Formats: sequence, C-alpha cells, structure tokens
Amino acid sequence: MLGAMAASTIRYQQVEIPEGMIDLGLGQPQNELLPLDHVRRAASCIDRIDILQYGAEWGDGWYRVALGEYLTSVYGIAVDPEHLFATNGNSQALDMVCSVYSRPGDVVFVEDPTYFIALRTFADHHLDVRPVRVDDEGMDVEHLAELLAALRSEGRSPAFVHVIPTFQNPTGATLSAERRARLVALSEEYHFVVVADEVYHLLRYTDVPPPPPMAAFDGSGTVVSLGTFSKIFAPGLRLGWVHGVPELLAPFEDYGVVTSGGGLNPISGLIATTVMQEGWLEEYRTSLSSIYAGRVSLMDAELRAALPDDVMWTAPTGGYFFWLGLPARLDVGAVRARCLDQGVDLRVGSLFSPIGTPHPCVRLSFTFYADDDLREGVRRLARAFGGREARSG
Amino acid sequence: MLGAMAASTIRYQQVEIPEGMIDLGLGQPQNELLPLDHVRRAASCIDRIDILQYGAEWGDGWYRVALGEYLTSVYGIAVDPEHLFATNGNSQALDMVCSVYSRPGDVVFVEDPTYFIALRTFADHHLDVRPVRVDDEGMDVEHLAELLAALRSEGRSPAFVHVIPTFQNPTGATLSAERRARLVALSEEYHFVVVADEVYHLLRYTDVPPPPPMAAFDGSGTVVSLGTFSKIFAPGLRLGWVHGVPELLAPFEDYGVVTSGGGLNPISGLIATTVMQEGWLEEYRTSLSSIYAGRVSLMDAELRAALPDDVMWTAPTGGYFFWLGLPARLDVGAVRARCLDQGVDLRVGSLFSPIGTPHPCVRLSFTFYADDDLREGVRRLARAFGGREARSG
Repeated sequence: MLGAMAASTIRYQQVEIPEGMIDLGLGQPQNELLPLDHVRRAASCIDRIDILQYGAEWGDGWYRVALGEYLTSVYGIAVDPEHLFATNGNSQALDMVCSVYSRPGDVVFVEDPTYFIALRTFADHHLDVRPVRVDDEGMDVEHLAELLAALRSEGRSPAFVHVIPTFQNPTGATLSAERRARLVALSEEYHFVVVADEVYHLLRYTDVPPPPPMAAFDGSGTVVSLGTFSKIFAPGLRLGWVHGVPELLAPFEDYGVVTSGGGLNPISGLIATTVMQEGWLEEYRTSLSSIYAGRVSLMDAELRAALPDDVMWTAPTGGYFFWLGLPARLDVGAVRARCLDQGVDLRVGSLFSPIGTPHPCVRLSFTFYADDDLREGVRRLARAFGGREARSG
Repeated sequence: MLGAMAASTIRYQQVEIPEGMIDLGLGQPQNELLPLDHVRRAASCIDRIDILQYGAEWGDGWYRVALGEYLTSVYGIAVDPEHLFATNGNSQALDMVCSVYSRPGDVVFVEDPTYFIALRTFADHHLDVRPVRVDDEGMDVEHLAELLAALRSEGRSPAFVHVIPTFQNPTGATLSAERRARLVALSEEYHFVVVADEVYHLLRYTDVPPPPPMAAFDGSGTVVSLGTFSKIFAPGLRLGWVHGVPELLAPFEDYGVVTSGGGLNPISGLIATTVMQEGWLEEYRTSLSSIYAGRVSLMDAELRAALPDDVMWTAPTGGYFFWLGLPARLDVGAVRARCLDQGVDLRVGSLFSPIGTPHPCVRLSFTFYADDDLREGVRRLARAFGGREARSG
C-alpha cells in the first residue's frame, strides 16, 4: 500500500529534496534535532478536559500566563500576559494581521529583500506592497520616512509596515536601536502599525545581545510583535503569539476564524505550557543555539576557504541565514544553474524582492544539515562558484 | 494570583455563562462529555519526529489516509485520501475558501437563516453576501436558480454558494436528495463552487440516514465539502478537512499560510490518526449520538408539555438545534427579554440572517447541558413563553 501511495499525491513532509541534493537554501530545522521527547512527555500530561472545548479567543489563559513568564525571562523586559494573543504561528498571524489591520488595496511597506512567502500572504489580501531598502543595519528607516511623506502627499497612509528586525530573513541584518526608535516615532507620526516579525530574535550565537525586541515598544500602542515556537522549538506545533497592547489585539477577537472556532490551537498551547513551565524550552533553546553557533563557525570557515575572494558576506550572529553578495562578474542565475549541476541548491536574491529587484546575492542556511553535509555542500558550492582561484582564473 | 487574574482579561474558556443562567442557545458540546481519555492516550503515542517539522501542505499523509478510510466507512461512499486537504476546522477552512475562491466584492449566496458567525468571515473578505430562502427541505434551490439568472443578466456570477446541507444550523433542515442534485447541476451551469459545510452530517438520531453528503458529488468538480472533528469528537483539536477533487484543492497549496507554515495542525492530525485507527472515534461518535438522541427526546417531550400550542417545531433528527417558530402574538425580542429574567437564554432568529430578516423563531440546543439542566431550562422557558395555557389566557 505504501508503494502505491508513493506514486500518488499523498505526501508526508513539506519538503522533498531530490535524491543526492544538498539544499543549502532551505530555511528549516533539521528533523533529527527536533524535540520529540519533550513534546511526547508534555503531551502525555494532557489533563484538562476544557482544553478540548472551544477555547478563549485570546488563547488559553494558562498558555498566555506561562508565555508571559517565559518571554519576561528571555526578553529582559516585563511581558504582561494580557498583551499576548495566541496564534497558529507567524504565517497564520500575518494572515490575521492583514485581515484585521488592512483592507484590499491598502498600502503596506515591506523590506526589500524580505521573507518571500510573506509576499504571498500580502497578495492573498490584495495589498499594495511597497519596498523599503535594507542595509547592514536592517530596514533603512530614512528611506521609509521619505516614502511615507510621499504617500501622505497623495493623501494616503499605510495600513502597516512589516519588518523583520532581528537577524533578518534573508540578510541576517539586525535593526539598530536608533532605527527601532525612529521606526516607532514614524508609526506615531503617520499612524500606522509596525508589524514586527521577531521569529529569529531568540536565536543568537554571540555574547552580544541584539537590541531589545520591538515588543519592548508595545507601550507606544503602535507595535505588534509576532513570535513563534517554530524556530526555537518545533514548527509542527503551529503555535505562536502576537504581543501588543490590548487595544491593538482586541480586534483579533472579531476575526471570523477566532470568533467562530475559539482560540487558536489550544492543544499545542497546552503542550507548550508544560514545555515552558518545566524549563524544557529554555534548555532546548540554549542547546539549539549552541549547535547552530558551531555550524555558523564551521560554515563560515569552509566558505572563506573555498569561495572566491570577491564573494562577500558577514557571518550571521543569529537567525538562520548567510547572505552572500556576488561580484558583478558572477551571474546569480548562472551560478545557481551550476550549483544544481553540482548537487547543491540555494536561494537567489531576486526571490526575496516584492518588486523583482535583482539582488546580486544568494541565501544559504546551516539549520537543516549537520556538519558533514555542510562541508560537502560547500565543496559543491566552490565548484559552482569557481573556487578561490576563480577570480584570477 | 488566580484571584488577581479573575479580574483581568485572562480567560480560560470561550464561553462565560452568567452564574445561574442556563444558556440553551449555546451551540457547544458539554465539557464533561469530551473525550479526554482518548486524546491523552493518542497524544502519549506521538512517536514521529517528522510530525514536529513543517508538514506537507495538504496535511500529513497518514492523517489523510486514515481519514479517507474513516469517511469511506461512515459516508457509505469511497473517499480517496487524495481528495482530502487538512484544515484547522471549518471556521478556518471557510476563511481559506474565501481567500482562494473569491475576491473582494464577489457575490456569494448563503442560506437565510444560516450559521451567523460564517457571516463574520464573509465580511472579513469583503464579499457581497446574498440570501437564499430556506424551508423544511433546506436551501430553496429554485430560489437560488432565480437569483443566479438575475445575476447573470448583470453579467456576473457568484464566487461560491455556501450551504449547510444536513441538519442545518439553525433550522435543523436537511437538503433533499433532489435538491442536492439540482444544486450541483446549477453549479455546473453557472460555474460556481458549492461550499458545503457538512459539520453535522455525522450526528444523526434516527435510523433513517440523511441523503449522501454533498461530498458524494465531488466527481462533478464543483463541490467542496468541509468536515470537522469539532462536533463528532473535540473542538479543541481545531482539526478538519476539505473534501473535493484535487483540481479544486490544489489552489490551497498557494494560500500563503500553507505555503509558508506548511500543512495545518500536524500534531492534532497525528492524534486524530491514532483515534481513527484505533476505532476510538467511531466508538465515541456512536456513544455521543446516542446521548444526544436521548436528550432530543427528552427536550422535545418537555417542550411539548410546557410551551404554548402555537409555538411550532420539528424535533431534530440530527445536529445540534431545535428551531422554534413563534406565533405573531409573541414578539421574539420580548420573549428573549423574559427568558433572561427567568434565567434562561436562547438565540433569536434575526441573528442568523445575512440581511437582518426578522425570522420569528428562536434557536435552542441540547448539547451543552445534561438532562436536569435541560428540564429546568424548559421550565424557565415555559414561564417566559407563558406556558401551555398562555394562548387562551
């Protein structure tokens, strides 16, 4: 029967990597690192019959309280559980944000480059997506200021500004503290919501903490911070949160899916509650960060030893991605074609642009593969890029 | 701490019924009947590390295969797992259907009366909602035919027609076999999708089965059937499915939430897979149907003994609801006010209309309360309605 199914559309995983391919572009954790034991132990503790009922719209109270305590401990700011709304993860949260904060045709500003599948959700909501430049300090907020002023001169304002402030996808850049404050000031001046996707904030690999999360600005009343268990624990939980002042979260209660079906994902919420209360989440996150830090060091060293000198990057200090800048002599599409020939894949820069900007860059990740595969993947990249000697060759 | 939280916005359940009130309007299962033991046993069997990963977009393969086998056994038609797409329950499914099948401003036809919170989701998607009459055989498809013809004369066609075919919410009516066929013929003629919310199809209380589900027409290529574990097992799983031909389901793969986050709710899907494979779902559904059948008999008898003769209804043969028609001499709003004074609540007819039609009816349910509360609730109703003698009084 399984043989028959293999030929059907019945699939068991989101990603099916061709046999023999090493897909260094993939932004997913490695299966073998996932916390099965923690989840099984937490799931076997399901002891509340009311968790099987339609749940409170904001999410189960115990989940919100445990999450508030956890975030307070890791964010270094006081997180009030009344400022948390349960989600099915950041992808669903972003969809809900679009439903609640925008109407079709509204302008939203996003980073260019940004997380490419977010663009699919903005398209689902028929939004007018406008790009903002990104540099080494993240979103160029002065560019945003110019765009806001120009839009105002048309008598318009954006529904929201979407930003990935820390260890950005794909660039790895972190928005500086000054820019964070400036972004919030702009949101107050122009009356828009800052939708901060803080998916990578809690995954850092150095002793230097990033600036406080955008969640720290929730007192402004213009910021919502989207968080998730997908990167720090397990994507399969399909669980996250929106963090903001209650006035900004209250409209989510009127979102049809929540009004009708009750709070999102109470079963996963209960599992996560146990995982947080027992300290397993923090233990796991610490261990995962350490593993990823090791892989970053390894991959950075292997890349430096193998790639041409004129391919430029900064080793990521957190998050999931290396963002390699290619010299003009290397065509991104041609490089990728040679990569595929060599049995290695990556993501090309233009994929991350809302307007098709041909970023002369490629995105690599180190999360899905262990050291040996990373080494072999880089060897294949070197052959595709032409190796260290290519420039003078 | 709990005392402090009680005064806060932190809540633990969706519904908070005022102390002493019996809310016969509520369409939820009784907490005490929920299958905690089955869920705990299934959850303790979580043994697949890949279930913690981003999942296959259509839903986990094992879930789809087990669901196909289960539906084949209870629907009496062959259900191909390749025709199933996992959802977070029917509320989320309807939201996704709107995203994928409609654009803002599109016309959709719905029953009047219908499930009132579905209207919230249609509003979230800025749809132009048009009512179709409902009678004892469900949606009046000839009325729909007239509306379709009129719309065509404007050069337009609907994005979809939403229908609750079996044991409808709120009327309890079941769409006849002839009307089902006619509805499908209309969908083929006018090129729209039939979105059938089959939430109550598997909850019947007589030996007479309803017509086959609308899912049986999936070969037409114009019907999708939304199903859920909420009514036959546990709302808290937030798990369901869309059933239709792959050509109709394929666009859901491009829905941003799914493309980005992977398949919906794999953990609940794994729990449900075990629950189906072990036979626990069928055992539970059979037992639940028997309990509900007993409550329908009880409530029907109590209502007949207590309410005025000119209040009319048909005892439901499935689903969740009694739909009582009130005589002109009884004002629905005034009756509800007297009900609240007596410590009992219900839902008034106009709530279920997309256009505020003042249906002279009230909706009652028997699912949330056990026999003693149902008896006491009816006693209170009798005082509010004026009792059997009221008509001549």
